[in-house]
Amino acid sequence: MVQVNENYLKLKAGYLFPEISRRVKTFLKENPESNLIRLGIGDVTEPLPKACCEAMKKAIDEMASLEGFHGYGPEQGYSWLRDAIAVWDYQKRGCEISSDEIFVSDGSKCDSSNILDILGHSNKIAVTDPVYPVYVDSNVMTGRTGEAEDSGRYKGLIYLPIDESNGFQAEIPEEPVDLIYLCFPNNPTGAVVTKSKLAEWVEYANQNDALILFDAAYEAFIQDENLPHSIFEIDGAKECAIEFRSFSKNAGFTGTRCAFTVIPKTLKGRSTSGDEVNLWSLWNRRQSTKFNGVSYIVQKGAEAVYSEEGQSQVKALVSFYMENAAIIRKELLSLGLKVYGGENAPYVWIKVPEDNDSWGYFDYLLNSANIVGTPGSGFGSSGEGYFRLSAFNNRKNVETAMQRMKAV
Amino acid sequence: MVQVNENYLKLKAGYLFPEISRRVKTFLKENPESNLIRLGIGDVTEPLPKACCEAMKKAIDEMASLEGFHGYGPEQGYSWLRDAIAVWDYQKRGCEISSDEIFVSDGSKCDSSNILDILGHSNKIAVTDPVYPVYVDSNVMTGRTGEAEDSGRYKGLIYLPIDESNGFQAEIPEEPVDLIYLCFPNNPTGAVVTKSKLAEWVEYANQNDALILFDAAYEAFIQDENLPHSIFEIDGAKECAIEFRSFSKNAGFTGTRCAFTVIPKTLKGRSTSGDEVNLWSLWNRRQSTKFNGVSYIVQKGAEAVYSEEGQSQVKALVSFYMENAAIIRKELLSLGLKVYGGENAPYVWIKVPEDNDSWGYFDYLLNSANIVGTPGSGFGSSGEGYFRLSAFNNRKNVETAMQRMKAV
Repeated sequence: MVQVNENYLKLKAGYLFPEISRRVKTFLKENPESNLIRLGIGDVTEPLPKACCEAMKKAIDEMASLEGFHGYGPEQGYSWLRDAIAVWDYQKRGCEISSDEIFVSDGSKCDSSNILDILGHSNKIAVTDPVYPVYVDSNVMTGRTGEAEDSGRYKGLIYLPIDESNGFQAEIPEEPVDLIYLCFPNNPTGAVVTKSKLAEWVEYANQNDALILFDAAYEAFIQDENLPHSIFEIDGAKECAIEFRSFSKNAGFTGTRCAFTVIPKTLKGRSTSGDEVNLWSLWNRRQSTKFNGVSYIVQKGAEAVYSEEGQSQVKALVSFYMENAAIIRKELLSLGLKVYGGENAPYVWIKVPEDNDSWGYFDYLLNSANIVGTPGSGFGSSGEGYFRLSAFNNRKNVETAMQRMKAV
Repeated sequence: MVQVNENYLKLKAGYLFPEISRRVKTFLKENPESNLIRLGIGDVTEPLPKACCEAMKKAIDEMASLEGFHGYGPEQGYSWLRDAIAVWDYQKRGCEISSDEIFVSDGSKCDSSNILDILGHSNKIAVTDPVYPVYVDSNVMTGRTGEAEDSGRYKGLIYLPIDESNGFQAEIPEEPVDLIYLCFPNNPTGAVVTKSKLAEWVEYANQNDALILFDAAYEAFIQDENLPHSIFEIDGAKECAIEFRSFSKNAGFTGTRCAFTVIPKTLKGRSTSGDEVNLWSLWNRRQSTKFNGVSYIVQKGAEAVYSEEGQSQVKALVSFYMENAAIIRKELLSLGLKVYGGENAPYVWIKVPEDNDSWGYFDYLLNSANIVGTPGSGFGSSGEGYFRLSAFNNRKNVETAMQRMKAV
């Protein structure tokens, strides 16, 4: 009889966001008139940049004509988009990344979970705690962990706590690990990494022949000019890092779908017999076989991000959300709450008042202020006692939400 | 040190289509003036249906406004698209498929390879030979096979030959298998399956608790009203089959990207302890965790396929390609070639003249007639001695290609 992948059976409860949805649905059934404000899931709310819309419409006109029609595109993405990314996101920042090291995809969630396809099963894997749940769940689903413990942690993974005590910076592991997930600006805590701290990670990875999976989906929100936007700003990173980037948060593409992954050609792994294997080649083979590229129309929209108008429209979007973040920070601080993040990231990470825990605070804000946030414990046991608010909403909602929090 | 998934190292040579690309590139470098006609890869050439273009433009206008903006959509697809699919593709044909059994995705290539994520590693797997290479390669890449043999076949897979001798219908395996890939109308041979023959497969699968992965990406090309478009037209299929469908070939979405997979809620697999596990739930979890849904804009385009204009435009597209197929069939038959397929499928499957083999015939047509086709042996060792021509091109190119074949 057909056997299932029973690693899925190890997954505990629902994935965080479906569980939030469930609670919100129940609340709305009981309170259909309530005017809920959603500062939970990191989903953008402002319209797409005009430059992107115009480019996509033009692409549709092409697709409507015999001469301009595009069928299957390159699985890796069109060269004009890969070129623009290489120049704007890397070469302009002094990173020697070439366009054929860039793989365009339909999402960083897909890429950051699919990347495990090309890696072996014996790797020692480290994640921070709290962490973006997809990193952990995709390891569970592919059999790279044991069962879940009562804490919600999975056996076999190495968890690196990030909390107030270490300034939300994971300690470099004492034991050698093979694979490390890092996310900066961090989801969920909003923490950032300095170049010198990131250089320590790169040095550790190169010393241990480890691979860093660097998620920079929120790099556009960095305000401090001294902070790195890419791990490839650090010397040696091309020998030890893969970077995930996205148009979801800078250009508001969460519903339009475009992202990319950078795999330097210099990156190596090993087979069990000890031979070096080029990771770029494996990913190229994976994408050629299991993926058919991103919609031509959507890639044209993404390309427009790099036009002059596109750049200024994206900057305006980012500024808008960062003003939201500043409002949230200011108001919460005035309430006497301990607040982290929100200065170079669209997430504000709140220390829950001592008489409550993360899900308790979730229910409290949902019921008393009709605000949806995200319980920190949903991101890992070390997130217990924290709560995430996102700056992705319109100004009126953000202001109303803060007034409601003051009132309760 | 980070270890790679060394199953990738078992993959032989290039994936078929990259290898064709390579040879074509070499040819074009040496013959830059040649007017190549591509009847190789099954890629559409006609403009997108107007109804789809209009719907996508309207969707972009929505995305450009605060009120109409859409962020993250449901990972499973929007209900309006799932509903339309359920009604038009299933309920209207008498299949009891509900919209929540439909998972919208960015491609059948992705789905038919990703489906292995939810299945165990001990399943006995059967594929036809020749076969769409993605089925085999995705099994190799996930460690479900042994090494490749000289024939190109992989140890551990069960190959079911399809050729002239059995009318391109695989024999039902004598030994029990757990997983069977079937593709009708068939890629590459263009063969179709009758309801009674398909019922035998369903009966076999239900008797052996096996799972059929049914690829119906080409169903729109079926002209014979008695042939099934979906495996769910067969009683019992909801207990043993998953179906892959696509907008790529009917509506010309190869560069626009939208497809769907149907997983009935009644479908069960087993854990090693023998417990029944619902496959719908596993796939739902997979998609929620590792996928972020298809672009809102593209889903709106796909929905328009089911409008009145959309339906008539798609029918016109299919008729156009099927007229191409008829021209190819007629001309090749007049040349004395043995020709299969092309009557309910956009692929014509040619028996290569006896003094040649598949790649030899590929090079011969490329060099002497400047036509790109696909060598049958690229689809498996039993495809040796065959050659695929696709009907996807404009009329003038098809006619010119046939004139050239007559002239050589």
